[in-house]
Amino acid sequence: MRDPLSKTIKDIKPSGIRKFFDVARTMEGAVSLGVGEPDFDTPWRIRSEGIYSLENGRTFYTSNTGLIELRQEISKYLARKYDIHYDADDEIMVTIGGSEAIDVALRAMLDPGDEVLIPQPSYVSYVPCTILAGGVPVIINLKEEDEFRLKSKDLEEKITDKTKILVLPYPNNPTGAIMEKKDLEEMAEVIKKHDLFVLTDEIYSELTYKEKHVTIASLPGMKERTVYINGFSKAFAMTGWRLGYACAPKVILKQMLKIHQFAIMCAPTTSQYAAIEALKNCDDEVAAMKEEYNERRRFLVHEFKDMGLPCFEPFGAFYIFPCIKKFGMSSEEFVNRLLQEEKVAVVPGTAFGDSGEGFIRISYAYSLDDLKIALDRIRKFVAKF
Amino acid sequence: MRDPLSKTIKDIKPSGIRKFFDVARTMEGAVSLGVGEPDFDTPWRIRSEGIYSLENGRTFYTSNTGLIELRQEISKYLARKYDIHYDADDEIMVTIGGSEAIDVALRAMLDPGDEVLIPQPSYVSYVPCTILAGGVPVIINLKEEDEFRLKSKDLEEKITDKTKILVLPYPNNPTGAIMEKKDLEEMAEVIKKHDLFVLTDEIYSELTYKEKHVTIASLPGMKERTVYINGFSKAFAMTGWRLGYACAPKVILKQMLKIHQFAIMCAPTTSQYAAIEALKNCDDEVAAMKEEYNERRRFLVHEFKDMGLPCFEPFGAFYIFPCIKKFGMSSEEFVNRLLQEEKVAVVPGTAFGDSGEGFIRISYAYSLDDLKIALDRIRKFVAKF
Repeated sequence: MRDPLSKTIKDIKPSGIRKFFDVARTMEGAVSLGVGEPDFDTPWRIRSEGIYSLENGRTFYTSNTGLIELRQEISKYLARKYDIHYDADDEIMVTIGGSEAIDVALRAMLDPGDEVLIPQPSYVSYVPCTILAGGVPVIINLKEEDEFRLKSKDLEEKITDKTKILVLPYPNNPTGAIMEKKDLEEMAEVIKKHDLFVLTDEIYSELTYKEKHVTIASLPGMKERTVYINGFSKAFAMTGWRLGYACAPKVILKQMLKIHQFAIMCAPTTSQYAAIEALKNCDDEVAAMKEEYNERRRFLVHEFKDMGLPCFEPFGAFYIFPCIKKFGMSSEEFVNRLLQEEKVAVVPGTAFGDSGEGFIRISYAYSLDDLKIALDRIRKFVAKF
Repeated sequence: MRDPLSKTIKDIKPSGIRKFFDVARTMEGAVSLGVGEPDFDTPWRIRSEGIYSLENGRTFYTSNTGLIELRQEISKYLARKYDIHYDADDEIMVTIGGSEAIDVALRAMLDPGDEVLIPQPSYVSYVPCTILAGGVPVIINLKEEDEFRLKSKDLEEKITDKTKILVLPYPNNPTGAIMEKKDLEEMAEVIKKHDLFVLTDEIYSELTYKEKHVTIASLPGMKERTVYINGFSKAFAMTGWRLGYACAPKVILKQMLKIHQFAIMCAPTTSQYAAIEALKNCDDEVAAMKEEYNERRRFLVHEFKDMGLPCFEPFGAFYIFPCIKKFGMSSEEFVNRLLQEEKVAVVPGTAFGDSGEGFIRISYAYSLDDLKIALDRIRKFVAKF
């Protein structure tokens, strides 16, 4: 029998995030700080709307684009929060989390050989989705000395006449880095100068702990070059509902919608009804969760400083990315030994790209109690060296 | 500004199914027989499990493959119903409806230029998903005189040295055709002889009205060549839950899982818990819906015969596919005039491929009352000619 598989798929590595977490799960007394998922249940108000929609038998397909009521609320929310204005009729599409939006945008925009600039360390999907869409990922290595912000010099260095899209993954997973308005303005100039498009993944936009989050889509001349991605998983603790959205100029969104229509049909109906409630009436619940994340963040920054582990202060998402270079181990080795010797699971920085070498990702989407136990163990571990 | 779009996507036409349905929706007094979606609410027992899981705060990601309890129930269900045996650990993956499973299978298996044989009339996704995966769709035109079954002669004629996959879309949407064991045995010989793989889309397998449904995956030597796709939308009236699954040999499933992991993450959690209940305890509910579909099916076959519209008897899904050639109009023209003059929305056969010309698809996923009103109007319409 011949080989059933595509040549492309075989070379793509599976995600390196879950590996240590799966080991930790079978290890008695282990504490995991590995998973990038809110530890909060979805707020009751939102679950209650989901329940209500099931009780009322709303179990049918919605339109391919998503419920118009939901798209209208997304439009209002984005205007209210980030001063960007998308038309509910033809510039917004409801997706299966941010994940599907990334995949569909790349499939709609890339021809074979087109280059996609991907700053790393960053989320694990951009590279494989680019390859699967026929594109060529070009990595920009972010630096700790820049607080893992993207700099125009590093961006320009990688631009060729094949470059089509820049992925902008801020607030960033795994570093917790953010891009502020002045950083984005610098980017926007380069993007316009070289006639590029931006895929901006702002799934963590609600979770910033400094100034108000700014999106590149709101800068002059950028909306027409931007596919804006967001969703409900992180801000509203709705990971399992699988609901996100993409906003884009009509001409791009129309093509993305075709792929979504054929490959997915529509996002889950119960989740869509629940999400309307999330956008309309849950500012307080989101603020309370954010306050809790911020408390944990400050605790971790203090603790790592105290134990002499260098770590820039992260202002976004729910990750902290301390440097472990001084121990003379690779990230993978450090993480392995930490798990075996002290039963704490974290993720090696290299799971997010080669430039993550020398760092570990710690998620603070865990209770302060768990964080305290884990940090005591990490302190004990590093004291050995 | 340069063109943001991929060359491939621009040539793909959007689905032709919804067009007439959308017009009908804004037309007062219109009756639609257009949509391929059960008219039943999801059985209460299933919704109740979904509600229970929300009440209990099960709002987190599941494993990428899907809940192990669900995969185990899928494995048991397939053994019990269709005598096929898949390992819950590494041969089953839970997807966003059957749609995602089709898309992911093609992406995992096709290299640029690989040919995919697609019998038509058939569901609208196979051709665009093949093209998006870099493959070349090769159409096999099914014939009414064969009751729209695939014949080995027609299959062999289209096989070249580039052929890799045969899509087997039975029970068939839009024709209602089925493939019985002897038909499938004929196919299996050709498939093995030419070393092909099969993507068998059996989303309507619970809805057959003749002998017990047989899957090609159960024939000798076929499991290792087959990606088997099924889901909850049709049999359990769970369209809005967006839940399906793919079963395949471990070597194929492992690669499909990578795409699913990066592009989708996991299927919705609430839907997965509800689906466990569907597989375990809802045989009676499924049987009751099927009995109702069968009653409507027999009514329609009788009515069309009575008004002199030729129509082979469909034994699968919930569609009937009468021939309208004798009116000297195209399918599109017939459907347009029927909607304008008598306010009945159906779908032209051409929405499912060129070989659907001269036919219309009527869905009987509508109440007998609606069907009676619609059939009276169709009778009046055809009496004009």
